[in-house]
Amino acid sequence: MITLASDFGTPYPAAMKGAILRRCDVRLVDIAHDFPRQDVTAAAFWLTQVLPEFPPAVHLVVVDPGVGTDRSALVVRAGEHVLVGPDNGVLCPPARALAGAGGIEAYEIAAENPRSATFHGRDVFAPAAASVHGVAPDRLPELDPLSPAGEIVDLAFPDPEIDPDRAVGTVLVVDGFGNVVTNVPGGILDGRETVEIDGKRRPVVPSYAHADPGTPVVTVGSHGNVECAVNRGRGEEAFGLAPGDTVRIGFE
Amino acid sequence: MITLASDFGTPYPAAMKGAILRRCDVRLVDIAHDFPRQDVTAAAFWLTQVLPEFPPAVHLVVVDPGVGTDRSALVVRAGEHVLVGPDNGVLCPPARALAGAGGIEAYEIAAENPRSATFHGRDVFAPAAASVHGVAPDRLPELDPLSPAGEIVDLAFPDPEIDPDRAVGTVLVVDGFGNVVTNVPGGILDGRETVEIDGKRRPVVPSYAHADPGTPVVTVGSHGNVECAVNRGRGEEAFGLAPGDTVRIGFE
Amino acid sequence: MITLASDFGTPYPAAMKGAILRRCDVRLVDIAHDFPRQDVTAAAFWLTQVLPEFPPAVHLVVVDPGVGTDRSALVVRAGEHVLVGPDNGVLCPPARALAGAGGIEAYEIAAENPRSATFHGRDVFAPAAASVHGVAPDRLPELDPLSPAGEIVDLAFPDPEIDPDRAVGTVLVVDGFGNVVTNVPGGILDGRETVEIDGKRRPVVPSYAHADPGTPVVTVGSHGNVECAVNRGRGEEAFGLAPGDTVRIGFE
Repeated sequence: MITLASDFGTPYPAAMKGAILRRCDVRLVDIAHDFPRQDVTAAAFWLTQVLPEFPPAVHLVVVDPGVGTDRSALVVRAGEHVLVGPDNGVLCPPARALAGAGGIEAYEIAAENPRSATFHGRDVFAPAAASVHGVAPDRLPELDPLSPAGEIVDLAFPDPEIDPDRAVGTVLVVDGFGNVVTNVPGGILDGRETVEIDGKRRPVVPSYAHADPGTPVVTVGSHGNVECAVNRGRGEEAFGLAPGDTVRIGFE
Repeated sequence: MITLASDFGTPYPAAMKGAILRRCDVRLVDIAHDFPRQDVTAAAFWLTQVLPEFPPAVHLVVVDPGVGTDRSALVVRAGEHVLVGPDNGVLCPPARALAGAGGIEAYEIAAENPRSATFHGRDVFAPAAASVHGVAPDRLPELDPLSPAGEIVDLAFPDPEIDPDRAVGTVLVVDGFGNVVTNVPGGILDGRETVEIDGKRRPVVPSYAHADPGTPVVTVGSHGNVECAVNRGRGEEAFGLAPGDTVRIGFE
Repeated sequence: MITLASDFGTPYPAAMKGAILRRCDVRLVDIAHDFPRQDVTAAAFWLTQVLPEFPPAVHLVVVDPGVGTDRSALVVRAGEHVLVGPDNGVLCPPARALAGAGGIEAYEIAAENPRSATFHGRDVFAPAAASVHGVAPDRLPELDPLSPAGEIVDLAFPDPEIDPDRAVGTVLVVDGFGNVVTNVPGGILDGRETVEIDGKRRPVVPSYAHADPGTPVVTVGSHGNVECAVNRGRGEEAFGLAPGDTVRIGFE
């Protein structure tokens, strides 16, 4: 199985699929191709959430604003999974989530003279994903092991500050419903009926529909973090929050 | 085969696919993941149109504004098909369309302590779809048969009023081309060259391109109902009609 | 394998998938379903780029503003590939790209009384794609060979004018990143550090990130043509160019 994720929209992902399918017969599963364009952090967050749902697979990830520069092209083994994509940090958080006890090993793809300088998804990463499907990376001559693994570009989500009376976090992403996903662990809401978000008191609910339609609420999202939402409405509008914003959560 | 339909956008559907594929090896087919958000009626309409095109399959349907409340989680056998989703009416019209002579039986999913309160698509419905794939629902211990079947929440599309000189209907959905789909059976257009829509006379055509580009027309859509459209334009703008609106069709 | 491409959005493509899958068990791959609506030229351009990436397959293409009129429904064999779609030109450029040394043969689909006049994707083309999957077109009685092949509607992309000191081209499409794709072969940029686009001097770069973020640049896109782009921005806004526009490229 090869999963595909990108910020490409269409029809570029189909070119990657063709490039894979003419090399091997494999199941393809789309993760998303509408990640915020060139936003490595948002893509890394979503992949960290979604890829661990999958059985062992090759995950092709192309959010690649540096395509055609000297950034490396990587294959990363993470436990029983393999990630393929650019060396810009987008692979690291999902690799840690996938590795389990199996560890992480990184390889550089030796791609000489790719067909284009602007579409390595088709010309470098898709062929590498097809090659590594069903084959251990250390058996592929076109992959050069990196040592130490720490050489690849990493990306860390910001850490929240958590005090006895408040938490200060960051908005990681806003989902398609307008739900504002923060980096603050949901556990801080345990046993609370309300919290203050940026100075305004809001009800804490187990899920959206526990408040009347239109009510701004605070809940624990499916990722386990604090989420600011509106039942049948859009949290990012009601809370005035966008990705990257600081969010202050005050307790009693 | 498991089909997937939701109002999730991306990347949540991919989490459902992972949750299925780590439990069973099955073909997955997307119906749509951009149904109007939390609009149970629109989803039910489209599924009633599209699902009967498929061979016998499990259909995972997650338009679920009440996620995390006490609404039930259902498996519905409809003839040779099985539907899995929330008990909010979205499953009933497609179940009737799929049942044929085979009848309908409903089961409640006994999901104790799901992993999240906000994403039952991943945590309740996708695992249930994987379980029921290839297994009769009455052989699964986690499914409790409901009796009588009438206990589940139903949803009926509004009925049009049809008189000798006019019909009064409702706009069910507007499709991506801007075509306005009503609940009025297309048969009322038989043999007519024009009708009045909300007081304005419009040509009746067999298909869009039988009128000049830009012309508002009335036709029978692929669902068999009266549709208000514009050749190479957008019907919902030209007719000023939106989902839920009343539409008056006057004959000679 | 059957690939699917259309301007349908959702959920109409799912109806085509159901219509195929209830007739045969075949892998389905989406190319795109958000081609600019009823824009035969844009669809033909993208398909010409993407379909040659695939191994031999049946390609179902439904961009069909003339549905329900007397335009023909076609099956076109192009080398080892087969295209299925309306006779409006959309199939010809990709057929030439796919044919290689294998030549092109066209057949008309004898579809009597299709179920609808407005959705031949579901009612004519999907069934034809299922029939021709794995079977040579000349063995299907419902296909009538056309002779000569030239009878089908063709579509040619505009030719650029290329002079020693300038090129005058046309914008073919704008991609999802806002990159402006022209019909001017990328070779004219060889060895140049800058060119003038519509009178303004712009740097020529090997890929987007070779300029500072926000800089308008000129590069060779993955299709091999001149592309006007902005690193981490939108080329169509910076250059003021849209599909169909003339673009003047001046050299030193």
